[in-house]
Amino acid sequence: MSAIDDLARSLSRLPGIGPKTASRLAYHMVRRDGNLNIDLGERIAGIKDKIFPCSICGSYTETDPCPYCSDQTRDSSLLCIVEQPQDVVTIASSGVYNGLFHVLGGAINPLEGIGPDQLSFSSLRKRVEKGSFTEIIIATNPTDEGDTTALFIKSLFSDIPNLTISRLASGLPIGGDLEYADRLTLARSMRGRTSFK
Amino acid sequence: MSAIDDLARSLSRLPGIGPKTASRLAYHMVRRDGNLNIDLGERIAGIKDKIFPCSICGSYTETDPCPYCSDQTRDSSLLCIVEQPQDVVTIASSGVYNGLFHVLGGAINPLEGIGPDQLSFSSLRKRVEKGSFTEIIIATNPTDEGDTTALFIKSLFSDIPNLTISRLASGLPIGGDLEYADRLTLARSMRGRTSFK
Repeated sequence: MSAIDDLARSLSRLPGIGPKTASRLAYHMVRRDGNLNIDLGERIAGIKDKIFPCSICGSYTETDPCPYCSDQTRDSSLLCIVEQPQDVVTIASSGVYNGLFHVLGGAINPLEGIGPDQLSFSSLRKRVEKGSFTEIIIATNPTDEGDTTALFIKSLFSDIPNLTISRLASGLPIGGDLEYADRLTLARSMRGRTSFK
Repeated sequence: MSAIDDLARSLSRLPGIGPKTASRLAYHMVRRDGNLNIDLGERIAGIKDKIFPCSICGSYTETDPCPYCSDQTRDSSLLCIVEQPQDVVTIASSGVYNGLFHVLGGAINPLEGIGPDQLSFSSLRKRVEKGSFTEIIIATNPTDEGDTTALFIKSLFSDIPNLTISRLASGLPIGGDLEYADRLTLARSMRGRTSFK
């Protein structure tokens, strides 16, 4: 049964897929229509030939520049800074933002050896210097690393006049229950309370 | 970004992989070493060419008969009957069973249109008639469908003399807590209580 075990081992190298799930998936693949496996297998094997980072913003794309950077209808005075390429899709598909993006490639995390040099701050700085941005929106995650990165971005642009620097609001998730909110979220939503008109 | 979306859609056809997990996996594949993707992709695409059901017991194998059926050191007087091919591996690797196996291919489930004709009962009957089994161990799942299937197997062999028919014990899982046991498990462990020597 080593082909199944080999497949399960390869599957278990994916994030969030433990040995039991990997084994269950491998057996499922033996059972199902083989065309589905060929289709999935070819897509996985070829994904890195089709997708690369946009030379301007760093989001994943099949064309360079990416659809966001080359879209003339987007507001070129707004720049949203995110950690990962998938965050671009999340924010773009929310429908409440129509500006441009910049992907850092992660957050500052000294414990994992990720300092400012490993992230795309120099190209970010150049874009803002050359571009026509009036506001940059920091959309790093509401984590310790995201907070550190947000502070770093703020200091990076402290010398540029007339540039608004904002950050996504943190607080209670919509539909959530106060009873189940953790203390940190509650504290942040209290500090960041907004006037109720 | 359609190649990522296509990949995520293919991944989400796997059991237990929802749209969010599929998308996370697809982005991870773009980020990681491409050789891992080629390796995984080829294994998935080719798995059905390598693995097929054993002509004797029905478990998945790369050789016919399978390693269990062709292993002369296994006890050919014991036959363990399971629902799925992966159950064979689970029981064999537990180290407490050294007999042979028979895979039914599922359990009787009238709601899903699975009757006795869809399962491998006729080959099971022939194996027991021709073989030298003194005991068959029913290892169907402790579910309604597994219980129904167990009763069916019992009636299937009621005419064969000197054949012991047993079933895996159900009850409290080792390391579990009485407080968290559900009523059905508790009831079954009470009915199946064993003498404490």
